[in-house]
Amino acid sequence: MGLTWIDGRPADALPLSDRGLAYGDGLFETIAVRRGRLLLLERHLQRLGEGARRLALPLDLALVRAELLAFAGELGSGVAKLIVTRGDGLRGYAPPADARCRRILSGGPPPAYPARHREQGIRLFPCATRLAEQPLLAGLKHLNRLEQVLARAEWQDPACAEGLMRDASGRVVEGVFSNLFVVRDGELLTPALARCGVAGVMRAEILARAAQAGIATRIEDIDYPALLAADEVFLCNSQYGIWPVVALEGHGWPLGGLTRKLQGLLSDLVDA
Amino acid sequence: MGLTWIDGRPADALPLSDRGLAYGDGLFETIAVRRGRLLLLERHLQRLGEGARRLALPLDLALVRAELLAFAGELGSGVAKLIVTRGDGLRGYAPPADARCRRILSGGPPPAYPARHREQGIRLFPCATRLAEQPLLAGLKHLNRLEQVLARAEWQDPACAEGLMRDASGRVVEGVFSNLFVVRDGELLTPALARCGVAGVMRAEILARAAQAGIATRIEDIDYPALLAADEVFLCNSQYGIWPVVALEGHGWPLGGLTRKLQGLLSDLVDA
Repeated sequence: MGLTWIDGRPADALPLSDRGLAYGDGLFETIAVRRGRLLLLERHLQRLGEGARRLALPLDLALVRAELLAFAGELGSGVAKLIVTRGDGLRGYAPPADARCRRILSGGPPPAYPARHREQGIRLFPCATRLAEQPLLAGLKHLNRLEQVLARAEWQDPACAEGLMRDASGRVVEGVFSNLFVVRDGELLTPALARCGVAGVMRAEILARAAQAGIATRIEDIDYPALLAADEVFLCNSQYGIWPVVALEGHGWPLGGLTRKLQGLLSDLVDA
Repeated sequence: MGLTWIDGRPADALPLSDRGLAYGDGLFETIAVRRGRLLLLERHLQRLGEGARRLALPLDLALVRAELLAFAGELGSGVAKLIVTRGDGLRGYAPPADARCRRILSGGPPPAYPARHREQGIRLFPCATRLAEQPLLAGLKHLNRLEQVLARAEWQDPACAEGLMRDASGRVVEGVFSNLFVVRDGELLTPALARCGVAGVMRAEILARAAQAGIATRIEDIDYPALLAADEVFLCNSQYGIWPVVALEGHGWPLGGLTRKLQGLLSDLVDA
């Protein structure tokens, strides 16, 4: 596993009483680290804090920040995955009144995605697995991820670098491990995530940097015909930045100018 | 934690690379054990096998059975909780091609529910948390249980022993840790679980024993008005058997004759 910490100290084993294992009762963040620096740290902490608030996890964000900074210093460059759980539980779903959150950090090398994904664009697999609509969990990066496991198991063909996930009504929502953007008439659109989906930190960063650059942005429901009719389509996440989408089933999109411009705007966050 | 095994051997710590922790990628069963005997074992194994098939977990059920029997022999009497995960994973949702399921067993004393729940009936709390509709996971006792955690956190009043969970359309589905039955005109009804919910082993056992006893049974959608209009209402699970429901918000039901009769039919499975 490489470098692993629990609650700020080197450790590599979890007590079996942890509620993260029992119920997926927790959250996670996957953070790119470059020469000891945690990229988009404030956005990761903001989402984590929002998740802790909505799940009523008694999380000390200042402690998490300090542990992340120390961990990144040891890791150097790579990926830091943080899992926060509600800690130990007795039998039963009721959150213990005296719950103490457990912080689990594991470090690894940067993901080895082919450069052509970013340079030439990728083909999307159309996942049959639909995202269930659960407003209480929508947007959070929580530990209940069986839908993503089922969706990612639908294809092995390496020609498809990611999969498209829709909700029960057929609206397009995101990739299995990415957020989705479309360009229409010079405007940048990304699906609303009020019913399902993960509100990615790179999605938020792209929305902010695009707006700064004078590009109109909009968050709204996007149905499948609207996706197919888009001028450009791309995916993003905090590790790889932006992948243009050039194909989905029989459909194709050009690798467009706005997608290239946004890739350029993120160059400080993504290894070339 | 008491008695704990991993993969058939005493152990009390989980590798941090386990996909049960990372994604809730697994299943569980909570089995009542009496003097070394696992109650409703075949039903537990049947549901576990069905879950493994639907999640494509490469689970050796004969091995699970052998480990459960040996574990129950050591435990004596109490509860055996079995968690099965997809084992270790690399980073990423894709199930490893060579996944090896991990079996985690933990033993504890029987749950200490007050006898009055069974004898006098309980009050239900009306949970606001709705069950999302996900047919791919419906019926399974998988490790993604944040909805139950949120629902159980809605009330602390010990006057309510369980909570009622509805789906997004308002249909009644189950309790937070129980299945639900209603009696109407002498017929025994329990909600269909095609969209959400856990198909409990005690629910299956009650349906089978009721049919054997000549009681008409039916599995169908039940809406909230139909629940309120029922002649009798009760909950069940594999640990406590049957709890009559006598109150929900301003509504009440009598502790009825068919509920009592079914409690009697289960007397071999439930401690008096």
